[in-house]
Parts: sequence; C-alpha cells; structure tokens
Amino acid sequence: MTRRVQEFRVAIDLAGVFVFALSGATVAVQRRLDLFGVLVLAMVAALAGGVARDLLIGAVPPAAVADWRYLAAAGFGGLLTFYRYSDIERLQSPVQVFDAAGLGLFAVAGTEKALLLGMNPVSAVLLGMLTGIGGGIARDVLMAQIPVVLYSELYAIAAVAGGIVVVLGHALGLPPVPVMLTGVFLCFGLRFMAIRHGWGLPTSRHSPAREEA
Amino acid sequence: MTRRVQEFRVAIDLAGVFVFALSGATVAVQRRLDLFGVLVLAMVAALAGGVARDLLIGAVPPAAVADWRYLAAAGFGGLLTFYRYSDIERLQSPVQVFDAAGLGLFAVAGTEKALLLGMNPVSAVLLGMLTGIGGGIARDVLMAQIPVVLYSELYAIAAVAGGIVVVLGHALGLPPVPVMLTGVFLCFGLRFMAIRHGWGLPTSRHSPAREEA
Amino acid sequence: MTRRVQEFRVAIDLAGVFVFALSGATVAVQRRLDLFGVLVLAMVAALAGGVARDLLIGAVPPAAVADWRYLAAAGFGGLLTFYRYSDIERLQSPVQVFDAAGLGLFAVAGTEKALLLGMNPVSAVLLGMLTGIGGGIARDVLMAQIPVVLYSELYAIAAVAGGIVVVLGHALGLPPVPVMLTGVFLCFGLRFMAIRHGWGLPTSRHSPAREEA
Repeated sequence: MTRRVQEFRVAIDLAGVFVFALSGATVAVQRRLDLFGVLVLAMVAALAGGVARDLLIGAVPPAAVADWRYLAAAGFGGLLTFYRYSDIERLQSPVQVFDAAGLGLFAVAGTEKALLLGMNPVSAVLLGMLTGIGGGIARDVLMAQIPVVLYSELYAIAAVAGGIVVVLGHALGLPPVPVMLTGVFLCFGLRFMAIRHGWGLPTSRHSPAREEA
Repeated sequence: MTRRVQEFRVAIDLAGVFVFALSGATVAVQRRLDLFGVLVLAMVAALAGGVARDLLIGAVPPAAVADWRYLAAAGFGGLLTFYRYSDIERLQSPVQVFDAAGLGLFAVAGTEKALLLGMNPVSAVLLGMLTGIGGGIARDVLMAQIPVVLYSELYAIAAVAGGIVVVLGHALGLPPVPVMLTGVFLCFGLRFMAIRHGWGLPTSRHSPAREEA
Repeated sequence: MTRRVQEFRVAIDLAGVFVFALSGATVAVQRRLDLFGVLVLAMVAALAGGVARDLLIGAVPPAAVADWRYLAAAGFGGLLTFYRYSDIERLQSPVQVFDAAGLGLFAVAGTEKALLLGMNPVSAVLLGMLTGIGGGIARDVLMAQIPVVLYSELYAIAAVAGGIVVVLGHALGLPPVPVMLTGVFLCFGLRFMAIRHGWGLPTSRHSPAREEA
C-alpha cells in the first residue's frame, strides 16, 4: 500500500519533470540556444526544484541524480521540444500551461516527500512550493531575468494550496492517491484561472514609483 | 553554559534573519513585486546565507527549514515591510543600514556555528562571511543584478573582521557572549564607517577601460 | 595504488581550481571589481562546480571547504590575476584558454570522484560535466549574464567526452593515470578546436525569430 503510494508520487514527480522540461526547453529555443543549451535549460527547469528540496531534507543523492528516469524524462522533454518546436508551440501559450501543470504536480509530490522524510506540516508545504517554483526560478536566473514567479498571478499561492490539500489529507487519514490528485487539480485550476482572469496579489500601497528595471 | 551560548547564537541569528528580511523586502517593494514576491525576497535575503552554510557543513535539514522561528522571523520582516513600507523607508537609507546590521549578526553567528561543527578556523571565518553575504547575493541575483557586495565598500572585509574576533575569542578561551557582541559591533562599525567615508579596496591597477556592462 | 590515483585526481582538481580562478578573476578585473570582488569571483568560478557535485553526491563538507589547498589555489589565482593582470592578459584570449583547460581537468576529476562515491556511469559523466561547467555558470550568473556555456561551441560536449573516457577506462580496467590524462587532453583539444574553427551544435530549425534579449 505505502509502496503503491510512493510509486504514485514518483509517477506524479516524473510527469512534472517532463512538463517543466518542455517549459524550460521552450524558453531556450525562443532564445535560440543550441541543442546543448536547450537540454541544459530543460534539465534545470525540470530538476532544480526537486534537487533543492532533496538537499534541504537530506535526501542525498537527490532522486534527479540517483534515478535515471528523472534524467530521461527531462532529456526527452528537451529533445522533443528541440525537434518538434512548432508542434509544441501550436499549443496555446505553452510555457504557461506546462508551467501550471508542472507546478501542481511538483507542489503535491514535493509536499508528500517532505512529510515522508519527517518534516513538520508548515515546512512540508513550503518545501512543496519550493519544488514547484525552484525550477522556474533557476531557468529565469540562467536567462538573466527576474523570475516570473515573483510577479505572476497567484503562482506560489496555487502551489501552497496544493500542498495544504496533501497535509490535510495526511492529518485526516484520507486515502493518499485521490488526495494527491485533488491537490494537483486544485493547484492547476487556481493557476489557470488566475492567468485567465488576471487574478493577482496586491502590491504594497506604499510602493514608490516603479524604478527603471 | 554551552547551552546558553548556543541560545545566544540563535538569538543573534534570528535578529540577523529579521533585518535581512527587511532589506530583501525593501528591494522587492521598490521593484513593485506583489505580496508573494515581497515574502520570497524577504526569505531569500534572510535565509539563503545560512542555508548555504548549513548545507556546506552538513547541518541538514538547515535551521531555516527545521526551526519555525527562522521562517517566522523572515515572514514577519517581509509582512512588516509590505504593510508599513513608508515607516521602514523613513529610516535613512534603510537597505544599507539593515544590511550592515545583518552582516555583523550573521558573520558572527555563522563563524560560531561552523566552529561548533568542527570546521578549522580559516574555513569557519569564510563560512561566517558566506552566511553574511549569501543572502544579499541571492537577493541581487533574483533581481538580475550584479550583487552589490561585489563592489561595495569593505563589505566582506567587515564580515571577515567579525568572524576573526570569534575565532580569536575561542582560541583565547574568552567568554563567548561578550566576544560575539564585540564581533557584531566591529563588523557593523567597520561597514557603517566605510559607507559613510567611502572607504574601499583598490581595483587592479591593470584594469582595462570599463566594459559596457 | 588506489591512494596514488586519488592523489593524482586531487592534483588534477587543484590545477583546475587554479586555472578557473584565473578565468573568474579575469572577468572580475575587466568589470573593475575591487580586490574582494576579484577574490570572490575567482573562488566562485573555481569552486562552485566542485561544491555542487560534492553536495549532490553527499560528500559533505565539500573538499573546497574542508581542504585548505582548494581555497589556497583559488585565492592564489585571484591574487595573481589582480596584481599581474597585464601579464595574464598578454596570453591570448586568456579566459577562453583557461576555461578550456579547467573544463578538461574538472570534467575528468569530477567523473572520477563520482564513480568513486558509487554513482552509476551516466550520472558520473553528468556530474563531471557539472563540475566543469558549474563554476562558469555561477561566475556568469553573478555578472547578471546568460552563461556563455549555454551557447558556446561544444563546451559541454567536450566535458562529456572527457568524462566518457574516464568511465570507459574504469569499465575496461585500464590504468587510471594515463586514462585521466587522455580524458583531460581530449576535452581540452575538442574545446580548443571548436573555438578555433567555430564548431557548434545546431539550433532548433523551428526557432522563432530571435527575441529582444
């Protein structure tokens, strides 16, 4: 039973790796990086969040290093984007949609893994959020840009919501697989609606006039 | 006794977390990030240096993850800045002053913790410096800027001076609490005077004409 | 025997640290950073790749922290560049040549260390590559630029080639020292020829028109 749950978590994690790899590789193709640059950006976007989480909870070596399926999923996403960019691009605003899906998958899988390694619920939710936003932050830092998650509509709030579902499910002893699926869809749905309707958090009323950058 | 010293180190650490959170959040408000972006920048500026130190010395999970007071201090600093920005701003050149205070607190607490975990004195001083400068570097990298610590007046030298006080105090068997306070004030004082009088380190005589960026 | 091999690996590692320190410090002098900024960039370029590898394989504290020779080699490279910049500069396009040499040294030493710690061959080659490219990426991120390795001629492919030599040598039971030297020279040679002849990987045929940045 526990084993099946863990396999389900890994499956969710791998799906997140794949869609974040598409997101990273899409940015890299748009910047006209070469094949290697596309693969690196795919891997960074796909794996950096989970690696950061694993280092912080002491799960060393991280799954991304020890388990070949993570590298394979990230590499496959990168190659697919490189050789089939026009197909990937045809899907509407693909970076954002892949990002939203990956966010939900990672937030849920990351929270679940952190709980499993004995973290307290608050840390577990934050580590799930880090799993979800870490890859996108690393991708944008490598592109020398301010990470989009820092000013995107409800980005991390959606991840936090997904993580809270997992934590509540654990606390109430609910069956894990439907709980995880609920978390993924809640996060994806929130993020998707936020993009669509431009929902956002407030900025400080006291903000000075926007500076040049 | 040792326990009281450790509690004092944690108190210094938490004070550093709070003031670095103010510094990070101030930058974020100035860039008009939303509430989440402000909280992230507060946490990154407040916690990245200590997390880097803890990963390097094998203290996993890092205090910032395992101890809720670190997250609380960083979050409180971020919220305070967000909702009371004009008060925070009224303090003169707040980013620099908070930075100088946080630098001293972190350099001393970081050196102390590294010695405690058995690092040699040179590594301990450098790890204290990393604790002090890591958050500011991460904050600036996320804002896609060259970190100010790399060209600021005596920034890291001040941190090194604070760390050396701690190492000397250990070697001479002096009582730790006054030693730590001396280190904090020496570092803060050096940095403050350097800002005020424009003290700096030399650049290479051989520097070519400054390049465009 | 095994001990001599390990000493040889460390010697290769330290040579890589030294030349990457020259590369990082050269960039810092060109940006007119002060003495401290030059030392930081030297250390980051020299040590970040190895530190990342050591964190990922659980070799904590990393050699760069625990072994004073790493800090000394990086610091020496930084000081030499700072005080003798015009001599360093006279060597043709020094950043690129030091980079190519450091790449070969690190890719080989990093792959060897990862195999030693029990990683599988694919992970070992990728960790060797990370050792080789990590410092340059960190250097460029601190300078708020897109890392050159992401669009440079055959940069990481050369590192991968060097790592594959090491993995094959292990699998075939060949004597490690000549194998490592072969790996270093293959990587350096590939990278050097690629720079000279402008060899590169393809970009996606489907790339959109280059975006503004």
